[in-house]
Amino acid sequence: MKAVVIHAAKDLRIEQRDEEPVGPGQVAIAIEAGGICGSDLHYYNHGGFGTVRVREPMILGHEVAGTVKALGEGVTSFVVGDRTAISPSRPRSQCEYCLRGEQNHCLEMRFYGSAMPMPHIQGAFRQTLVAEQWQCHKVADGISTNEAAMAEPFAVTLHAVARAGALIGKRVLVTGCGPIGVLAIIAAQTHGAREIVATDLTNATLKKALEVGADRAINVATNPEMLAAYAANKGYFDVQFEASGSEKAVRSGLEVLRPRSVLVQLGLGGDVAIPQNTIVAKEIEMKGTFRFHEEFGLAVDLINKRRVDLKPLLSGVFSLDDAVAAFEAAGDRSRSMKVQLSF
Amino acid sequence: MKAVVIHAAKDLRIEQRDEEPVGPGQVAIAIEAGGICGSDLHYYNHGGFGTVRVREPMILGHEVAGTVKALGEGVTSFVVGDRTAISPSRPRSQCEYCLRGEQNHCLEMRFYGSAMPMPHIQGAFRQTLVAEQWQCHKVADGISTNEAAMAEPFAVTLHAVARAGALIGKRVLVTGCGPIGVLAIIAAQTHGAREIVATDLTNATLKKALEVGADRAINVATNPEMLAAYAANKGYFDVQFEASGSEKAVRSGLEVLRPRSVLVQLGLGGDVAIPQNTIVAKEIEMKGTFRFHEEFGLAVDLINKRRVDLKPLLSGVFSLDDAVAAFEAAGDRSRSMKVQLSF
Amino acid sequence: MKAVVIHAAKDLRIEQRDEEPVGPGQVAIAIEAGGICGSDLHYYNHGGFGTVRVREPMILGHEVAGTVKALGEGVTSFVVGDRTAISPSRPRSQCEYCLRGEQNHCLEMRFYGSAMPMPHIQGAFRQTLVAEQWQCHKVADGISTNEAAMAEPFAVTLHAVARAGALIGKRVLVTGCGPIGVLAIIAAQTHGAREIVATDLTNATLKKALEVGADRAINVATNPEMLAAYAANKGYFDVQFEASGSEKAVRSGLEVLRPRSVLVQLGLGGDVAIPQNTIVAKEIEMKGTFRFHEEFGLAVDLINKRRVDLKPLLSGVFSLDDAVAAFEAAGDRSRSMKVQLSF
Amino acid sequence: MKAVVIHAAKDLRIEQRDEEPVGPGQVAIAIEAGGICGSDLHYYNHGGFGTVRVREPMILGHEVAGTVKALGEGVTSFVVGDRTAISPSRPRSQCEYCLRGEQNHCLEMRFYGSAMPMPHIQGAFRQTLVAEQWQCHKVADGISTNEAAMAEPFAVTLHAVARAGALIGKRVLVTGCGPIGVLAIIAAQTHGAREIVATDLTNATLKKALEVGADRAINVATNPEMLAAYAANKGYFDVQFEASGSEKAVRSGLEVLRPRSVLVQLGLGGDVAIPQNTIVAKEIEMKGTFRFHEEFGLAVDLINKRRVDLKPLLSGVFSLDDAVAAFEAAGDRSRSMKVQLSF
Repeated sequence: MKAVVIHAAKDLRIEQRDEEPVGPGQVAIAIEAGGICGSDLHYYNHGGFGTVRVREPMILGHEVAGTVKALGEGVTSFVVGDRTAISPSRPRSQCEYCLRGEQNHCLEMRFYGSAMPMPHIQGAFRQTLVAEQWQCHKVADGISTNEAAMAEPFAVTLHAVARAGALIGKRVLVTGCGPIGVLAIIAAQTHGAREIVATDLTNATLKKALEVGADRAINVATNPEMLAAYAANKGYFDVQFEASGSEKAVRSGLEVLRPRSVLVQLGLGGDVAIPQNTIVAKEIEMKGTFRFHEEFGLAVDLINKRRVDLKPLLSGVFSLDDAVAAFEAAGDRSRSMKVQLSF
Repeated sequence: MKAVVIHAAKDLRIEQRDEEPVGPGQVAIAIEAGGICGSDLHYYNHGGFGTVRVREPMILGHEVAGTVKALGEGVTSFVVGDRTAISPSRPRSQCEYCLRGEQNHCLEMRFYGSAMPMPHIQGAFRQTLVAEQWQCHKVADGISTNEAAMAEPFAVTLHAVARAGALIGKRVLVTGCGPIGVLAIIAAQTHGAREIVATDLTNATLKKALEVGADRAINVATNPEMLAAYAANKGYFDVQFEASGSEKAVRSGLEVLRPRSVLVQLGLGGDVAIPQNTIVAKEIEMKGTFRFHEEFGLAVDLINKRRVDLKPLLSGVFSLDDAVAAFEAAGDRSRSMKVQLSF
Repeated sequence: MKAVVIHAAKDLRIEQRDEEPVGPGQVAIAIEAGGICGSDLHYYNHGGFGTVRVREPMILGHEVAGTVKALGEGVTSFVVGDRTAISPSRPRSQCEYCLRGEQNHCLEMRFYGSAMPMPHIQGAFRQTLVAEQWQCHKVADGISTNEAAMAEPFAVTLHAVARAGALIGKRVLVTGCGPIGVLAIIAAQTHGAREIVATDLTNATLKKALEVGADRAINVATNPEMLAAYAANKGYFDVQFEASGSEKAVRSGLEVLRPRSVLVQLGLGGDVAIPQNTIVAKEIEMKGTFRFHEEFGLAVDLINKRRVDLKPLLSGVFSLDDAVAAFEAAGDRSRSMKVQLSF
Repeated sequence: MKAVVIHAAKDLRIEQRDEEPVGPGQVAIAIEAGGICGSDLHYYNHGGFGTVRVREPMILGHEVAGTVKALGEGVTSFVVGDRTAISPSRPRSQCEYCLRGEQNHCLEMRFYGSAMPMPHIQGAFRQTLVAEQWQCHKVADGISTNEAAMAEPFAVTLHAVARAGALIGKRVLVTGCGPIGVLAIIAAQTHGAREIVATDLTNATLKKALEVGADRAINVATNPEMLAAYAANKGYFDVQFEASGSEKAVRSGLEVLRPRSVLVQLGLGGDVAIPQNTIVAKEIEMKGTFRFHEEFGLAVDLINKRRVDLKPLLSGVFSLDDAVAAFEAAGDRSRSMKVQLSF
């Protein structure tokens, strides 16, 4: 089978790999759709991020869906031909964190396509993936595998919403309208946010934010005063979903957040200088959110029932052999939201 | 009467002021003890902090206790001769924050000795203070007004504990062992912290930390590796009370905090650079804590019932006329924890 | 002006009353729509409920909307002709509960149409109501005052949702599909419940439950086994909104709730015998919910933005002079969901 | 070895049993102290409780401590001669509840001395117990195994405190001053309750309540008005720990609890009739608490560090051969708090 393998920055290859055997409790899936994520782009463009570096060839990818083609012994919840989204999160459910229900912090996590441990955890951009039955979530009739492959980034934002606490009556600011920011808008609206204001530096992404349900979109490159106006009376927003990783977005958010509000940090971005006195004086709660656990099943469920429509995010599908072109397109925010590969 | 008035950095004067009349619902108190706080020191040493500057003469002080000498009309809960601690927090209980029970964020707050608004809010370092009945909390027999005057900084740390959530079974790190850090140790222990590790840069303060109940004290100037050892398995502490305002303390804390732990920020200190990726990957919750509200009465109550002993913090009492010497002593961490004035 | 006055059980009269003067900060509203609530029906049918009895003539009603016809001094947020929903909740915002943000427990509450205090609090079923500006919430163009008058019962269910905690990923059981149960379905769905199962004893109400968004409706009079099947593996539901006040609904709910789930009690109903051992062994959290506070404004907002559609609840509008017929119709669950008066 | 075996109500026998082999990861413990619990008494006096009945001979007991006498393969955290408390809670850590961190609700729980499943789970009142290493918690020098054996019921009350939420500043009512009520007083005080009022029907137990730290003890059989006085202004207490299982205690508690307070139900007792309207109107949160999980280790830790002193609870130690006399004594509340067996 073919797989999409990163060797070093800008060295992405389509290679042949052996298919893995299907063990008990496992299913073999013919992958059909695979979304390119920010971390895939980091490996492709920079060979890694922070201290995490590609040190051996690694199959990329963790946003995938496909069709079941073989069943291991004892598998009862799937039949051949079922379509499924596959969670890339594989905790071992035995460490102290797993036994507290915090599986996303598993000490032995094997998340697809991660160069953090050595040997690296191989990813899911391959024609056939063998996965545990419990990683797989059936896709409903009428839902495409392209939509289903977006369950993974959507789960990230559902986890962010879960971290934020109840959104009933809350006014929400979303900073950064890449795929994660736009999915956060959908996730927040689906869970009852009273009002959503989105910011970004480009009008293309802001248009998408409005399309999926933001009440207002502000280009803070051209109109920073529109956001700043919310600072009156100590602030306006109850919750900020920070999806840009930019220091400026954090700092301007702190100005317009009310006392005792919550800033949920989704975006990654190295060191940021924050005004500690604002955190103190407004009693801001800044909390990180990392991947997801039970939210993957919830994401598939909401997609299956058409409670959410993620199709507006899909900006292009490239064939496997055009993977390099796909990665280049995915990295261009002016024209791409979510780019997927077809296998 | 005499009052302690700041005019500019290093320009502190003892001046005569008229006593205020006692209105309905008010009491006049002969102040006996007044503790010098970090913010008083900032005014004294630097003429302010951040953008807050002394722009007109201002009476300093907000940690005070004394004896009731006159009663306004309708006052029933005090008699002349009662000793009382006086809360410096004076919200108006009418703004949107007050009506959410968040009086410490009152839009019309008149906290004693604050140069934030213009005209400044005059402070409580004066021989006679006229206060609202509801600001006053009776001091029990056998408790000195020196102890009672520490109710204010203790209330700050009780509010920090309330912000942290339940401490049952929690392992706690306290960074910075000035008066606030040491009081945070007492507050955390009184509310059930399972284990408390304290850090500072000087042995004198660490000794005090152990004296009031810390299980371990680490000098991170000389033995940083002792703290760093707690980083194994993604971290050890469930809660950090950060009372130094130092960037280094925040950053080293993030290394040894467990996933989903809480960093309660007490210390003030301008911009600090934080590793956003750690906040995200460990899903840390960093939350500010600011002053107090109902915790002032609780502080007096715990002192009155001898549930806590704050006497070890008191390093010296200076007479009013030696106020300048008192401020100099208070600013010298090597010899002073809490310095008070006697009126 | 005319008003709807209860004198005793089954003694409802249309009487003339003087219009009240419009004071500073107040508005006079020509009431157009008034919904009949369960408590109105209790006064009408039984002269009260529990120990609360009608002891003097009292204007009924608290679910009202109308058009502003006069403005008191200093009113700036309305103009004559504006349509408005009026919150019947009038806390004084000065007691200990108000200052904790728990205004629905105000010790001096003056909720429209309540016989609890003596003299009774006169209600809002009158042709002209004078209300405080802060009680009034503007109704958007295109929204009828009939819809707006449902903001009050909807606010009750929004408060119930707020009491339940975040609904993300939660499976919800709603027992009792009268107006409150049906509005709870709408409120829960709007705030992200993953799945909603509704139960009642009559098919007419269950049909309405499905119409507004329940995933499944079970008639527990005819098919109790359909609900009982959810008891496997210690239970299925994370949250129950109990809107029937029936002991049976509470008890059967406890069987199908998961360990650590929440039963939010909305329905009123005297003594109920509960199996204490189930509460203990499954660590159930049973919590009451009472009226609302800030949720009234949220209710109007969600109606105004068409985020919810409450029109399906309206079963009939009677003219003021037919009030007795309206009350008789409102009491007949087989044909009525929400009955309103037209003024 | 000898074991204490229940055959039917009032049919308790000392019988010979074979010692079990010590497997990998296990330790063999010479049991020294075993406390008699309320559930042991139910089996002895009534042959069970509710629908749970003794259907085959079962070794009783789950509050035990002793000395390690043999180590299984791979055991590194103990040496022969170590003294240890043994947690009777044995979840399998694989079901959906365990993987949410709710191990006390494990679908495959094997709690010592439980007749709920068939075959019954044999208990720990035996001369040698073989347990998993992770069940064992070392006892510190100077702590008796009698004290250590009280870690189990103490853990029950620590879990109750964890369920109650932070106790900082809270006024607490404890109803029922048997061993669980008295331990709840200790647990609540250790975790910062501001004030604790205890009630019971007998003066002997109330005396013990005061001895361990209650601020006030009320005999509600002779002085119910002392409790009722707390009902003014909608109630006084923020938290009730209900440890009697009595309907009257629940109902009188609801009268004196404040709006939005928490009633933590520890006591077991069949059906109780509760006033649903009070739950609703005061928005009371009644929550069950069941056994414990991580609190067992915490209990041992607090005992080891002498943060708590449980010795006042011990009313008598009987030799194994006098087990029947021990059970009779344990059932007599007028003379016994906690009765233990010596093995």
